[in-house]
Amino acid sequence: MYKAPVDEIAFTLKHVAGMADAANAGVFGELGEDLVDAILSEAGRFATDEVAPLGEVGDRQGSRLIDGAVKTPEGWRDLYHNWIQGGWNGLTAPEVFGGQELPHMLHVAAMEMWNSGSMAFALGPTLTMGAIEALDRHGSDFLKATFLSKMVSGEWMGSMNLTEPHAGSDLGVLKTRAERCGDGSYRIFGQKIFITWGEHDFTDNIIHLVLARLPDAPAGTKGISLFLVPKFLVNEDGSLGARNDLFCHSLEHKLGIHGSPTCTMIYGDGKFGDEKGAIGYLVGEENRGLACMFTMMNNARLAVGMQGVAIAEAATQKAIAYAKERTQGRAPGWSGQGMSPIVEHPDVARTLLTMKALTQGSRAIAYACAHAVDMAHASEGEAARHWQERSSLLTPIAKSFATDAGVDVASMGIQVHGGMGFIEETGAARYLRDARIAPIYEGTNGIQAIDLVTRKLPLSEGRQVRGFIGELRDVAQAVAASNRQEFGETAARLETSIADLEEATDWLLAALGDGRTAEALAGATAYQRLFGLVLTGAYLAKGGLAGAGDGKEEARVALCRFAAENLLAETAALKDRVVTGADSLAAARFILD
Amino acid sequence: MYKAPVDEIAFTLKHVAGMADAANAGVFGELGEDLVDAILSEAGRFATDEVAPLGEVGDRQGSRLIDGAVKTPEGWRDLYHNWIQGGWNGLTAPEVFGGQELPHMLHVAAMEMWNSGSMAFALGPTLTMGAIEALDRHGSDFLKATFLSKMVSGEWMGSMNLTEPHAGSDLGVLKTRAERCGDGSYRIFGQKIFITWGEHDFTDNIIHLVLARLPDAPAGTKGISLFLVPKFLVNEDGSLGARNDLFCHSLEHKLGIHGSPTCTMIYGDGKFGDEKGAIGYLVGEENRGLACMFTMMNNARLAVGMQGVAIAEAATQKAIAYAKERTQGRAPGWSGQGMSPIVEHPDVARTLLTMKALTQGSRAIAYACAHAVDMAHASEGEAARHWQERSSLLTPIAKSFATDAGVDVASMGIQVHGGMGFIEETGAARYLRDARIAPIYEGTNGIQAIDLVTRKLPLSEGRQVRGFIGELRDVAQAVAASNRQEFGETAARLETSIADLEEATDWLLAALGDGRTAEALAGATAYQRLFGLVLTGAYLAKGGLAGAGDGKEEARVALCRFAAENLLAETAALKDRVVTGADSLAAARFILD
Repeated sequence: MYKAPVDEIAFTLKHVAGMADAANAGVFGELGEDLVDAILSEAGRFATDEVAPLGEVGDRQGSRLIDGAVKTPEGWRDLYHNWIQGGWNGLTAPEVFGGQELPHMLHVAAMEMWNSGSMAFALGPTLTMGAIEALDRHGSDFLKATFLSKMVSGEWMGSMNLTEPHAGSDLGVLKTRAERCGDGSYRIFGQKIFITWGEHDFTDNIIHLVLARLPDAPAGTKGISLFLVPKFLVNEDGSLGARNDLFCHSLEHKLGIHGSPTCTMIYGDGKFGDEKGAIGYLVGEENRGLACMFTMMNNARLAVGMQGVAIAEAATQKAIAYAKERTQGRAPGWSGQGMSPIVEHPDVARTLLTMKALTQGSRAIAYACAHAVDMAHASEGEAARHWQERSSLLTPIAKSFATDAGVDVASMGIQVHGGMGFIEETGAARYLRDARIAPIYEGTNGIQAIDLVTRKLPLSEGRQVRGFIGELRDVAQAVAASNRQEFGETAARLETSIADLEEATDWLLAALGDGRTAEALAGATAYQRLFGLVLTGAYLAKGGLAGAGDGKEEARVALCRFAAENLLAETAALKDRVVTGADSLAAARFILD
Repeated sequence: MYKAPVDEIAFTLKHVAGMADAANAGVFGELGEDLVDAILSEAGRFATDEVAPLGEVGDRQGSRLIDGAVKTPEGWRDLYHNWIQGGWNGLTAPEVFGGQELPHMLHVAAMEMWNSGSMAFALGPTLTMGAIEALDRHGSDFLKATFLSKMVSGEWMGSMNLTEPHAGSDLGVLKTRAERCGDGSYRIFGQKIFITWGEHDFTDNIIHLVLARLPDAPAGTKGISLFLVPKFLVNEDGSLGARNDLFCHSLEHKLGIHGSPTCTMIYGDGKFGDEKGAIGYLVGEENRGLACMFTMMNNARLAVGMQGVAIAEAATQKAIAYAKERTQGRAPGWSGQGMSPIVEHPDVARTLLTMKALTQGSRAIAYACAHAVDMAHASEGEAARHWQERSSLLTPIAKSFATDAGVDVASMGIQVHGGMGFIEETGAARYLRDARIAPIYEGTNGIQAIDLVTRKLPLSEGRQVRGFIGELRDVAQAVAASNRQEFGETAARLETSIADLEEATDWLLAALGDGRTAEALAGATAYQRLFGLVLTGAYLAKGGLAGAGDGKEEARVALCRFAAENLLAETAALKDRVVTGADSLAAARFILD
């Protein structure tokens, strides 16, 4: 059973992701290290003792649609109410609405642990937090006063309604329409699909944020507006009023995250209310809805990245426990009685260490991204711009690398379990089934790669990415300067991989500069992975260099060396794919016609 | 919906895997090319029109245990009977028992297509064929006369009972016991798990082959005997007699292949018959059971490899069809109206071409392995030994590379489908769920790597593998000599990767020679993948060089180039892991304690 790795998480925050800098910058306000540790520890306890034990039942029972209402798995409603009573829902929300305004670094760490316990459960609150953020930034005073406090406390949950059958990655073509009522409110009509936690029995009201198009809106993404559409209208005294004209038509039957209801939502077909049309309130300005969504898109992408880290951690723990217990065959050098635990077989040990390295690398990348978000909030002027760029640069890498790691590590976990891994009751298969959505939603990893290459590399004419590569090189040099034999070839391997990253970056920037976009995009996914691998190597090295005095230094150095001497060798092939792969792709493209 | 790629399969058999050589060696007897084509075509038709349409229902309904009997999915029993009426069950079986003694090359090609249609369905007959082979090679005349004809016709199916809860990869510790009855028969007692198609409603009788231990047997693998244990005893006139003392206790709830019942079988607990103990008949000699199993193990491993090829092919077809139909966004250079089909996006095109290359590479490796099996059967003396070694060398690579490709390609297929890929009704997720068992059963891919490195590389003191590498080099040189610009850098890339393979091979042989087994095993999995990638490159090149005159030459050359310039770059990292990875693994091993 999953046990939250609170110490490892705290170490990564403090010694790898830059928590000390953030504290100096005032990100943590008056929050001392003791309180940070206490929060992490309690979040970990909740994940370990309360969420994780209900993960399996959620997978088995799933959420079900019965007579138009969604019944969540046994015990989940109570779990949610225990969770909001712990104050977790408002962790980063504004104090004025009852939140705690804690730094994003703490939030992602806590999210990781809850998602390890049950990704399907933790997903619901994640969407509410996104809705809170959009509303806080763009909502009118009326909307904030009416909805925010109850969303921050968790009394009401939120949902995000973007996708339509023909409009997934490309929201510009969405058709849901909004009509002005003349009194400042709107009527919404349309169908939304893949709406996560769009309907459920956790809370009495559900606050939907819905993208729709006004009759006179320009075509494409510039004609999309954002509306708040509550399941129940709210009276002036804050009590619940009439049922709004919207409902959950059906639930998807999915590969994983069965506990999380994925809804088709119908707005304005006259099922409820006297007049057709779901009543909605504009968030932000008309036709500026996509901008409102974008303000929270980055954090949502990082949140999905945390799901990848979370599954990777849980799957690794499970596989290691099994490999130490299960005996089979005699490993070379095994001197014990009878069969050896399978962890003694070199192939199994290599798999487990790879799982550990990918998990910790992903974690460090994601936390570093949260650090940049926090620093941007706490800074001004040039510094704010720098950190804003850094978080923008890191977001697609964190999202894609961590979610790919989630899938890969979960699959390796099944393999370590042998035949038992294929049996559902073992629980290893669930991790793969759950993990598989994360590289897809909140922008597929292919779209992250397009974003990374075409929008993030050019930030400050490439100075942001080049500066970052310089920082990574400093880490490699610090390893070299440490003269510690236990690092093996880490410094040299890291240097080589950083050079690969630099060469690929230069090539891409040149291609973009020349307008060779298709060529640049041909290698975008390879580049994204290359970047993630180099960051994994660099952050593990940073961890190895940190003298945390916790008795785990040797293990960190050994894992860093393992990653450098085994995983980083891949960067040459990835760089090669970026720099030379476009021609062969273009030449072979006709095969698919 | 899957459509059997009969032309592609025939091309690979003829122009890549060496069907012409085999024909010259007499492997095909009087079978002309027309008849070969007709057989492939009809196998493909059956897979496309009859098996594939029932794949989804099998997954959804699964096989269920009701009152001790297994009910297979709707339509499957009829499907099976149509299939055996087509004579497919006896394809490679001896003529004297009603089989057709066709070459293995044809068999694997047909198996691929049926498995693409439904892996869960095709798995049952695969096990029967294994049982037929074991019985034909090692069974007494009495056993053959009593059981073989009906197993060859398909009137009765077979099953293989090896695994016990504590004895999976390591059969030496199995506990199922056999007692001599004094009349030449035995009584069997014990529990077997993970017994594929151990109970079902396809046939009136099921012929179980069961590994068990005699009371006076030596410990370990040298004390295991093989028994034939029929579900119903057979009277002298061939009619069914009493129910034997064995039953299916439960079915596993699995990630995939839901239609295939995975049974826990109980032998000899007194549920049936007057006296406790399931009646069994010795196959081969006492205590030589494992040797009997090994004779068919190689073919079973290749059969599992075919499942990997099969899923990869089906997943690729599905993803390409979706990518051509689904429109979203505007790809760079897209000049059409509105959104472009997603296949126009470079990242999607790259993914699809990678899927194609891995599928066709896996197919070629597996067919080449079947070719070697056929050549060994048709040859004598030194030639027979050579081909026997070649098939032994290729088997672990075919099994592991193709089954890894099955999982990877199925996962890529989900990704191409975006959110729809996560919805079960789409069907892309089923391929991943089904594919995930193949790297595990019939010897995990980690065990295949141990087998490859410790048993196959040393064949003929390394001359077998070195000779093979020499043949691959000839292909690279032929590409260079062709002077066709369309090959791009194929020749150079292939040369480099072959050099990687050679260096890794030399290193491993030296390590084994020095008794550094643990070091050799540390890189075994990386070596196995390295070998598979080089073979993929070489076989695609062989296909590209073949002037088949079918109008697909250009496509083959382009795919070969794509693979060479994109996938082969990985071989350097894999070689590196073999040659230098052991130290860092040893240094990091303590982390897992």
